[in-house]
Amino acid sequence: MKNDITIAQEATLHHIKEVAKTLDIREDDLEFYGKYKAKLSDELWEQVKDRKDGKLILVTAINPTPAGEGKTTISVGLSQAFGKLNQKAIVALREPSLGPCFGIKGGASGGGYSQVVPMEDLNLHFTGDFHAITSANNLLAAMMDNHIHQGNDLNIDTNSIVWKRCLDMNDRVLRNTVVGLGRKVDGVVREDHFVITVASEIMAILCLADNMKDLKIRLSKIIVAYNYDGEPVTAGQLNAVGAMAALLKDAIKPNLVQTLEHTPAIIHGGPFANIAHGCNSVRATKMGLKLADYVITEAGFGADLGAEKFFDIKCRKAGLKPDAVVLVATIRALKYNGGVAKADLSNENLDALRLGTANLEKHIENLQKFKVPIVVTLNRFVTDTDAELEYVKEFCENRGCDFALSEVWEKGGDGGVELAKKVIETIQTKESEFTYLYDETLPLKDKIEKIATEIYGAKAVAYDVAALKAIDKIEEIGFKELPICMAKNQYSLSDDPSKLGRPTDFVIHIREVYVSAGAGFVVAITGTVMTMPGLPKKPAAENVDVSDESVITGLF
Amino acid sequence: MKNDITIAQEATLHHIKEVAKTLDIREDDLEFYGKYKAKLSDELWEQVKDRKDGKLILVTAINPTPAGEGKTTISVGLSQAFGKLNQKAIVALREPSLGPCFGIKGGASGGGYSQVVPMEDLNLHFTGDFHAITSANNLLAAMMDNHIHQGNDLNIDTNSIVWKRCLDMNDRVLRNTVVGLGRKVDGVVREDHFVITVASEIMAILCLADNMKDLKIRLSKIIVAYNYDGEPVTAGQLNAVGAMAALLKDAIKPNLVQTLEHTPAIIHGGPFANIAHGCNSVRATKMGLKLADYVITEAGFGADLGAEKFFDIKCRKAGLKPDAVVLVATIRALKYNGGVAKADLSNENLDALRLGTANLEKHIENLQKFKVPIVVTLNRFVTDTDAELEYVKEFCENRGCDFALSEVWEKGGDGGVELAKKVIETIQTKESEFTYLYDETLPLKDKIEKIATEIYGAKAVAYDVAALKAIDKIEEIGFKELPICMAKNQYSLSDDPSKLGRPTDFVIHIREVYVSAGAGFVVAITGTVMTMPGLPKKPAAENVDVSDESVITGLF
Repeated sequence: MKNDITIAQEATLHHIKEVAKTLDIREDDLEFYGKYKAKLSDELWEQVKDRKDGKLILVTAINPTPAGEGKTTISVGLSQAFGKLNQKAIVALREPSLGPCFGIKGGASGGGYSQVVPMEDLNLHFTGDFHAITSANNLLAAMMDNHIHQGNDLNIDTNSIVWKRCLDMNDRVLRNTVVGLGRKVDGVVREDHFVITVASEIMAILCLADNMKDLKIRLSKIIVAYNYDGEPVTAGQLNAVGAMAALLKDAIKPNLVQTLEHTPAIIHGGPFANIAHGCNSVRATKMGLKLADYVITEAGFGADLGAEKFFDIKCRKAGLKPDAVVLVATIRALKYNGGVAKADLSNENLDALRLGTANLEKHIENLQKFKVPIVVTLNRFVTDTDAELEYVKEFCENRGCDFALSEVWEKGGDGGVELAKKVIETIQTKESEFTYLYDETLPLKDKIEKIATEIYGAKAVAYDVAALKAIDKIEEIGFKELPICMAKNQYSLSDDPSKLGRPTDFVIHIREVYVSAGAGFVVAITGTVMTMPGLPKKPAAENVDVSDESVITGLF
Repeated sequence: MKNDITIAQEATLHHIKEVAKTLDIREDDLEFYGKYKAKLSDELWEQVKDRKDGKLILVTAINPTPAGEGKTTISVGLSQAFGKLNQKAIVALREPSLGPCFGIKGGASGGGYSQVVPMEDLNLHFTGDFHAITSANNLLAAMMDNHIHQGNDLNIDTNSIVWKRCLDMNDRVLRNTVVGLGRKVDGVVREDHFVITVASEIMAILCLADNMKDLKIRLSKIIVAYNYDGEPVTAGQLNAVGAMAALLKDAIKPNLVQTLEHTPAIIHGGPFANIAHGCNSVRATKMGLKLADYVITEAGFGADLGAEKFFDIKCRKAGLKPDAVVLVATIRALKYNGGVAKADLSNENLDALRLGTANLEKHIENLQKFKVPIVVTLNRFVTDTDAELEYVKEFCENRGCDFALSEVWEKGGDGGVELAKKVIETIQTKESEFTYLYDETLPLKDKIEKIATEIYGAKAVAYDVAALKAIDKIEEIGFKELPICMAKNQYSLSDDPSKLGRPTDFVIHIREVYVSAGAGFVVAITGTVMTMPGLPKKPAAENVDVSDESVITGLF
């Protein structure tokens, strides 16, 4: 079997202007980055903004397992399948981060014959958006520390600094640092922390901003620290907004690329779904809806994280109304959730499947709370047996969900036609009555508890003292009515990654709470989840190579 | 008077494919980054590599002063002037760093009517080369710290780590840090340091590498630390080379842009000249020499730093032979060197001029040691008097240098025609007998002392104990025969930035010495020069803004 990068490199790509032409985008509205990538201009938005929106389809999944689910592969394959049916569709995804690319996961642009290309560019620097975010984030940090060093007119309490530096890298030693050591000219000593760029508030802002004006307003609201009177100090007060916005000038424009079948893909923004809000940019999704009849978008990790935040943060803030949800699972992942070891997943095991399907069940129940029609799909593996597939099909249909198999990894768009037809049928026959999980005006704790109990299935929420104090403070300074961005491990519905399936009788622990005033949400960090990942014993980076002729290998 | 960014934004740019056409470059050999930037493909090099080289002209200057000398402005203006004379010329410059852009200096793409454009792109992310270098640098650091955390099979002594993290940012608090604090999963605690990206060895490697193969060999030689037996541990041993090379795959390709008069500019690589080797990439210079009859390139800061390293490192390593040197000064800067306060520089002062011209004199003497014909040019200001200009002209001609005035800031290429004609005449009538200052095979201390005494004019060199130990170590492990990359403040010929003019009777202090085995030189750090700059009281970043229509202002 060929691996993903080989398939991607063997593909003949169309010039991106040809892909744009299928969406009636003129060459003048493209800003090329090589032959196969382009940014979509602000002028294009002005031309299309009054058009009728296409249909919005969210692809989400059960909790991820080492067995792999293939959510991105399904998203890409589904959009290719729409192409096979001569439907105008766009897949709108997040940009991959260098952290997992060189860490444990490898690339993130789909797999097999359902990939977005050029695969290497996507997984490395792409059009530089993440680097721009890193620069803007760290410029703000440098300006803050310099302000303190140069006299601290804003009276910043160095023990109450909340702005962190960032790198798009898995680098555990940067989680907890001390900076400013040395002599007087080397700045003020303080504890500091780095997060991975995809967890930066600037990433969230980029993904939620409507335009340059809105971006600047959001940047100005970022709280970097509190002063000795306990009042917030913002990026606006540090006079950092203009320079940060200049750094982000191109990064806020959506990127157009193509799938292996030359259908259009808009790839823009990339917050992680465990430690951030997990959705691609609002601008990308909105642009897609004006350009195509169907936009297939993805939210990160399981539906407990990505989908919940997609609905309660992104859709709410952007006024988006999803028309259908595709919920992805695999027989293997369900059996893994049912307790089967990774090595034994190829054997038929209906008992374990039944047990593990509890995870799928909970996600179905959760998604039904948002009142969007659901299509469950199984990303089919050769080892899946008919009995296993039939069991899941029936399980879903009994719960009012539509169902279709997918074979897009192996067959590309052809392998997704059944799913695409089912999605179209669902949209045409079932009305989305999309609603949010919670009312924004509820107190912060009520919102956290609603997510923890109704989505995760917890029996209660326990707060660290610091988290409780932070909640009081955040409400006091006027941010009570923001939605919640939960940070939780992706593997379990609980905050303990070892609890697979559908855990019950557990408590969600809230360790830390802070407000992202520019993004417009309050982050609640649960369990031991970390905003700066580490590299594994043998990092994926060790497999990557480049030939003397500049051909990259080992990027998966 | 219009400011630089206004002039740049008012310019009508040609599509970069039109600029390429003037060099007979086919559209297929360009990788576009928008309409006005392109990378030059490896295939283009294969097509042109056997052509005869054009003439190579180095632009250097006296020691910089707050009065401004305009070395980049002269370089760009001179290339425009060649255009006016219907000569095929390329200006080959370094890419600007975000550090000075947001710090004290502002942009670095020329000035007035002699600029490289698009000015904002150049000064911000450009084609992402620096971000790629930052990522590769920090991936290596993360892999090294992860190696230690995961068991330290290579036996790395955490007190003997020499690899530093980097950011393209002026951020003084990152000079001295402690990383790895927290729990066991957060890595091993150790002292760490960040340098600005332009001081990273990877920047030097990118600028000196011939091609991807050479790049990988150089990356593999990088010494990141020493083990408990005192032996070097390399990037190759950490299996980091392939991934780093993948990150640098596009960054090693030269970038083509244009001047305000649509003549071609190749902008690639950007090591600082005070804390690194200060020259644009070898690939860019070599490509330029194949594409044009004249390549005008620049080395950073004064001739004591940039030019010396250009000759002794870049030209030696790349086998380049410069045909002429243009030495830039201003009447104002010479008077400043003669002790005149900045506020009084507009008044005629022949005594101060005579005094300050000692700085120019020393640079002329220095450049003559390399046996390349010299043309001195004065970047003319309205306040310069005829008597002042005449004094300097005569001074230079008495020392065997050609001389020409420049008015390229105000008049663009037309203001450089006199200089261009003089340069052509010099090249046609005077043979370059280019030679190096020192023999590579000399011991390290002899090479350091040759530069300190013969170029800087020091009476002696004093070494810190740590520096002496490092020199012994470096010679012991086999790097005796590398050239020296001096790190010294740019303002003075000495290592004390307050000593202007032509200081005498001073000692150069060597604080730290380390080998950049991949770059292929030994760095000697003098005085108090720092490899991570800081921001000033009011950073230039505070002036930058972006309109709602994405027009940038305040970038100078």
